[in-house]
Amino acid sequence: MAQIGLKAHPSVPEDYLLIDYELETNLDPKLTLASLCSEQSTAQWVRPGKQEDLRGKFGAKCVAYEVSGESNKPLYAWPWVAGNKFIRLKARIAHPLINFGPHIPNLLSAVAGEGAFYCPGVTCLRITNLHFPSSFLKLFEGPQFGLSGIREKLKVFDRPIFVGVVKPNIGLDSQDFSDTAYASFLGGLDIAKDDEMLANPPASSFEERIKKSALAARKAERITGKNKMYLANITDEIDEMMGLVQKATLLGADMVMVNAFFTGMSGLRHVRRHCKLPIMSHFTGMALYDRVLFFGMDGVVTTKLQRLLGADIIGLPGFGERMQTTDEQVLKNMEACLESMGNIKPSLPIPGGSDWAGTLPKLFEKIGHTDFGFIAGRGVFNHPDGPEGGAKSLNEAWEAISQKISLEKYAETHPALGKALKMFG
Amino acid sequence: MAQIGLKAHPSVPEDYLLIDYELETNLDPKLTLASLCSEQSTAQWVRPGKQEDLRGKFGAKCVAYEVSGESNKPLYAWPWVAGNKFIRLKARIAHPLINFGPHIPNLLSAVAGEGAFYCPGVTCLRITNLHFPSSFLKLFEGPQFGLSGIREKLKVFDRPIFVGVVKPNIGLDSQDFSDTAYASFLGGLDIAKDDEMLANPPASSFEERIKKSALAARKAERITGKNKMYLANITDEIDEMMGLVQKATLLGADMVMVNAFFTGMSGLRHVRRHCKLPIMSHFTGMALYDRVLFFGMDGVVTTKLQRLLGADIIGLPGFGERMQTTDEQVLKNMEACLESMGNIKPSLPIPGGSDWAGTLPKLFEKIGHTDFGFIAGRGVFNHPDGPEGGAKSLNEAWEAISQKISLEKYAETHPALGKALKMFG
Repeated sequence: MAQIGLKAHPSVPEDYLLIDYELETNLDPKLTLASLCSEQSTAQWVRPGKQEDLRGKFGAKCVAYEVSGESNKPLYAWPWVAGNKFIRLKARIAHPLINFGPHIPNLLSAVAGEGAFYCPGVTCLRITNLHFPSSFLKLFEGPQFGLSGIREKLKVFDRPIFVGVVKPNIGLDSQDFSDTAYASFLGGLDIAKDDEMLANPPASSFEERIKKSALAARKAERITGKNKMYLANITDEIDEMMGLVQKATLLGADMVMVNAFFTGMSGLRHVRRHCKLPIMSHFTGMALYDRVLFFGMDGVVTTKLQRLLGADIIGLPGFGERMQTTDEQVLKNMEACLESMGNIKPSLPIPGGSDWAGTLPKLFEKIGHTDFGFIAGRGVFNHPDGPEGGAKSLNEAWEAISQKISLEKYAETHPALGKALKMFG
Repeated sequence: MAQIGLKAHPSVPEDYLLIDYELETNLDPKLTLASLCSEQSTAQWVRPGKQEDLRGKFGAKCVAYEVSGESNKPLYAWPWVAGNKFIRLKARIAHPLINFGPHIPNLLSAVAGEGAFYCPGVTCLRITNLHFPSSFLKLFEGPQFGLSGIREKLKVFDRPIFVGVVKPNIGLDSQDFSDTAYASFLGGLDIAKDDEMLANPPASSFEERIKKSALAARKAERITGKNKMYLANITDEIDEMMGLVQKATLLGADMVMVNAFFTGMSGLRHVRRHCKLPIMSHFTGMALYDRVLFFGMDGVVTTKLQRLLGADIIGLPGFGERMQTTDEQVLKNMEACLESMGNIKPSLPIPGGSDWAGTLPKLFEKIGHTDFGFIAGRGVFNHPDGPEGGAKSLNEAWEAISQKISLEKYAETHPALGKALKMFG
């Protein structure tokens, strides 16, 4: 176990998963890393009285680590932690694939379960990355359509995809809901979607909403001559989701959404295996994994998992104070959607949260390319001219950016943008 | 919205779920609580130009709150948080059930999703309890057997249930595995179980392991005249789990285990709906939800959910430093398994982590009753006399406790206990 730097893009041995951890210990670093390997694999490797050592074949191994800091105080003063010397480490552990195979609940039980988070001497732990060998990636479906498939469906190739979350998010009847979606399509949304809180609740008729909203998309296509997609949230109990997928498909929805953190990531894979429509995975619940910066599971990991398990679109906490995520982290999560990943197609990232026309220039500047979805809720649906004006304001903002004109200037001749600036600015 | 104390056991209005939060804000408390209600329900409650207010029927409402502290520093110095006045609150929010119905992924998307964890002004948030109205509870299956059903199957009524996790946990072939389980049954285990990391990996033949271990349980029953249960871990991708349940059932397993935090809680419900065997739910992954004390979801909440969704046995992080959980919290989680919950049967709690014969007296003293499972891994399977001696040492420890004799004294005439004290003490 040599103390060496961790390469950002390591070559991965074919029979191993590489897991990157950031951790803190109040014990000897090497001893702690040995415990971490042991606890997540062959905690007891020999039967009493036997001559055997199961670690060779089944043991996880630390392949690289570096000391990244030291303090006399822990990162967090857990009531059960004592000591006056706390060492921070980055470690890369190679875990034999035969211990779990291409089964994510089992993979996570090994690398993010009791062995990792209840490991002696580990006072804080965060899983920061997973690196898969290419043969392992081939055992996963990945996105069916992915970024390029979504672009192909929409015939939008040279700009961000404009997405709106129909608002009021809950409480509208199906006619009002679909009328609202329709107006937003007319104004220039590519995708109008159900809120993550709206799926098949007692308060809303799923069938009616889907049927009418899909018809609204088709009608808007005829009027505008542009392709439109209505996204139906089919998040539900596992036993109900396939019924909703079938209904959504039959009733003409163009895409479905899964709140994968609450159905379980495996619920996303379940939908991927049985659904012919593109799938969006929403970040609701992600904070439980990634918010606390010294703990849990980094957004890069959860994003890679959603992509691996088949999300064509991955909704992510976006830029801005409200989303409680640093710009750097948003960009890393987006990169995890887009970077090369063997046979697994890139997903379309949608960094979201309180965006509207006025936030598009800075957001585009931060991202530096057009491979993202730009999503708004109130920024479209609470526009003074209603959703049509709201959607229009997004498109006008993009026109201004394309023509390198300031929004304020462009707004002088484009009233939808002008009203957005006045209302939300 | 009155500032009043939160009763521990509130009466719950029939059409609402009550959610208890502990939170911190750098804004006005009442404004922040209004945001929290709004963001988790009717964030935009009116369409532009319409006379409507959807909050009456669909809005979440704060029914009680109290200020529990104030500081000039936040509980955690998030890079995005500013301010010099941070107020801590306890709040109880009533959320209309019609917004999600008896669908846990949707319920969590509302009360633990974007609305809760990305709420303006909320710098820290922890969901500390859920209170369900009785009519809502009736829409859930709950445990099929529960605590009393497990006791009935084992014919063990007057002591803790003795459970062992077969070790070495991974890497044994099916014959060695079942021989090991068999020896532990002979020594006095009631339940021998697969490790949470051992389900159906490439490295182990699920069928062979289950078949031989179930036969070992039957053989041990004939020899000892006592009932035994072999628990098969069927954690897998959603699409694979029912196949494993069927195999486990056909091959004679007595119980199955689901790592519900990684299959998704809904995966547990899925198994509950289609499985005739008792189900254990394991805590692996729970730390992501409950470890950080100012954030996430309390163990009481995750435990109640597992019980609601059908876990007959709930594995929990137990006592002792390694499990990084306070004694108070362990007891609260256990109470959530056992307390009255309408039509939902009590589950058997198993607080686990590095226990062995010598930890039983203190553990029993802390718990104060016998309705729990006492679980050991190395404490049984790394005993100098092997698993038979290890299991025997647990039973001898219990005999000593029952007879109010110290373990040391009892060990003088009971060598299995004596060797355990020497080895693990």
